[in-house]
Amino acid sequence: MRQTLSEKNADVTVMIDRLGRQAKSAAGVLALASAKSKEKALRLAASALRCRSAKLLTANAADIAAAKEKNLSAASIDRLKLDPDRIEAMAVGLETIAGLPDPIGEIMASWPRPNGLIIQRVRTPLGVVGVIYESRPNVTADAAALCLKAGNAVILRGGSESLRSAQVIAEAITEGLLKADLPEYAVQLVTTSDRAAVGALLQLQNYIDVIVPRGGKSLVERVMVEARVPVFAHLEGLCHSYVHQSADIDKARRIVVNAKMRRPGVCGATETLLVDRKIAPAILPLLAKDLNQAGCELRGDAETCVIVSQVIPATEADWSTEYLDAILAIKIVTDLNEAIDHIARYGSHHTDAIIAEDKQAAEKFLTEVDSAIVLHNASTQFADGAEFGFGAEIGIATGRLHARGPVGVEQLTTFKYKLRGTGQIRD
Amino acid sequence: MRQTLSEKNADVTVMIDRLGRQAKSAAGVLALASAKSKEKALRLAASALRCRSAKLLTANAADIAAAKEKNLSAASIDRLKLDPDRIEAMAVGLETIAGLPDPIGEIMASWPRPNGLIIQRVRTPLGVVGVIYESRPNVTADAAALCLKAGNAVILRGGSESLRSAQVIAEAITEGLLKADLPEYAVQLVTTSDRAAVGALLQLQNYIDVIVPRGGKSLVERVMVEARVPVFAHLEGLCHSYVHQSADIDKARRIVVNAKMRRPGVCGATETLLVDRKIAPAILPLLAKDLNQAGCELRGDAETCVIVSQVIPATEADWSTEYLDAILAIKIVTDLNEAIDHIARYGSHHTDAIIAEDKQAAEKFLTEVDSAIVLHNASTQFADGAEFGFGAEIGIATGRLHARGPVGVEQLTTFKYKLRGTGQIRD
Repeated sequence: MRQTLSEKNADVTVMIDRLGRQAKSAAGVLALASAKSKEKALRLAASALRCRSAKLLTANAADIAAAKEKNLSAASIDRLKLDPDRIEAMAVGLETIAGLPDPIGEIMASWPRPNGLIIQRVRTPLGVVGVIYESRPNVTADAAALCLKAGNAVILRGGSESLRSAQVIAEAITEGLLKADLPEYAVQLVTTSDRAAVGALLQLQNYIDVIVPRGGKSLVERVMVEARVPVFAHLEGLCHSYVHQSADIDKARRIVVNAKMRRPGVCGATETLLVDRKIAPAILPLLAKDLNQAGCELRGDAETCVIVSQVIPATEADWSTEYLDAILAIKIVTDLNEAIDHIARYGSHHTDAIIAEDKQAAEKFLTEVDSAIVLHNASTQFADGAEFGFGAEIGIATGRLHARGPVGVEQLTTFKYKLRGTGQIRD
Repeated sequence: MRQTLSEKNADVTVMIDRLGRQAKSAAGVLALASAKSKEKALRLAASALRCRSAKLLTANAADIAAAKEKNLSAASIDRLKLDPDRIEAMAVGLETIAGLPDPIGEIMASWPRPNGLIIQRVRTPLGVVGVIYESRPNVTADAAALCLKAGNAVILRGGSESLRSAQVIAEAITEGLLKADLPEYAVQLVTTSDRAAVGALLQLQNYIDVIVPRGGKSLVERVMVEARVPVFAHLEGLCHSYVHQSADIDKARRIVVNAKMRRPGVCGATETLLVDRKIAPAILPLLAKDLNQAGCELRGDAETCVIVSQVIPATEADWSTEYLDAILAIKIVTDLNEAIDHIARYGSHHTDAIIAEDKQAAEKFLTEVDSAIVLHNASTQFADGAEFGFGAEIGIATGRLHARGPVGVEQLTTFKYKLRGTGQIRD
């Protein structure tokens, strides 16, 4: 007998509820697990992943075949695809996270009170983290490892296209957990591709402490609308590079080309270039040549089109489009203030850079642009946890609460206050 | 012509939306305001409040009269009531917050990267804070001052019973803002007593960065269910004091009486006393005498009733009731582990204390009890921002994200990353 949709949804809800209960219980054990056992679990997971290399390649080939049948784009299929090098990189990633300092128990601050009480602020795990992501299989390993290192249990809900690959990766992590005597439910993968599972996770207030959505705009928007659980918002990266009139032209050319074209599809890629009117005639023809050579399409405002040919006139929509592609919008501005205003109006509070030799202008930009990451004389593509020295990241948070910028191990923790007294009572 | 309910709700939504827009715009100015101007505004607000003392007493008398007509409880009326001393305390509170170190711009961490980039984590304001609270008029002054000090704009929605008083307080703060050349919309009071205003605030995702609900269980629960905006959860304080078998009996008596009876109505008051079986016969008769003399009703489990007379048998409901009153539930436990398990099952992750001379037992308790505040040999009534040295607080957060424990100025801030380079591009 076929199930009705509401019966199916009820089944999914029951399943997600069970995962939640198991995660909560595992989180209680993990919170008190030693640094050594967490490190051991991650190193053993890396070995288990290497041992499963052939099995993982077979599972991944089945994922790819199914994706081709569904006519997924070449870019999606590339993101999905594993090869021996990518599997080795994933194992090394697990070992890198294993080797990070353990954050739990760190005394973040300590101060005495006049009555003799000693107050300590001590780092603790967040509890249960839900990660909802799309097709890249390595997120399964990275997210699980970061959560585990921070003493959290995690429920992973990857893209349905990568489910077979993710299952093999999760299996390797479970092996690591069990061999290190940690609870197997510390890392759980949602194994149904039913989309109702995402909705059920977003409602799991009793068990999940925070949801990390890592994926495209539509996923993130769904999460923001439906979630009853706190979310580390990961909105789009509408990043700007701004060339101030005091910029060194060679430096600016190198930085802008890198900021756009190193990898145009990452969230830290520059989408809009702002150029001071005074320097535009000197730099734009050179930059246009560099970018054209690198295969970048240019869309400029009217003034840009006058200075450079081969520029498509930009429309209003271009200032708020995250291309994630080899396309750059260019706008000429009068000065620093107009640049700051433009970023405030169209930006996504992710990552923005100024290129300037005038230090005062640079400091004003760094202070006044309200983004998670602001840079002076460097590429916006540095918006990345590993580049910050965090070892790895789950994503770049654009929200303002708790985590902002790269979400690494430390951002997946919270704290408690320990007060030690000798019989103090309050007046 | 009378308005229909939906017309009224639409009006309220339009009004709240306007407050939100104004707050967002003020927040942009405040984020860049100097430490000096914020301090000046708060000191001038304190003066303006003192000047309005007579006007405030008149407004408060009208609030009290209306509350009596509505047959509010004596306790509610007491919370509502102002007198010259309470007004002076409020003014001093504004000055205390004015004198705290300015948190904005503080370099929280700084590190170089191998490529020469210097990364700084710098403290910034949260943006726009919404505070929803009940009848105590001083919250209007405290919450406004804490938010302002942290560079945030705030929208205040107090209890309708205290609206007349709150309006005079808000007027004084606005005077301080204007005299210090800060935006008048930095602090705004919702002046309708229509409950739809709360619902509208909870939906104001475009303008409000975080909601702080400060009040009783029903308010907080409504906020948790309806909010589309992030919330600093302030759930109940189901706090425990646990007397370990190694406790010093005199110390334990002093601490427990204070933890329960100093002010039984605060969220940090102990609601349940756990006592090790080995020490129960020695301490419980003495403690029962102390507590009875202090006017406290005792409700105990079966074993407690055997040891002490004048104890009402406790029911299962007593372990999860926040009395906020002169009532204490008492349970005898076998050992530390049973105490920790009881707190995990019935506690609210707020504040819990162990009384013990055995340091190892105390450390185990401090580590394993998953509460915002854990204490050794001190009263749970220290759960208070001022007692932590935070100057003042909006409340005690029981959530795990961003703010946990007392919410003072620092907890009302966030951060950004400033990266300074010399032309770095990413490989």
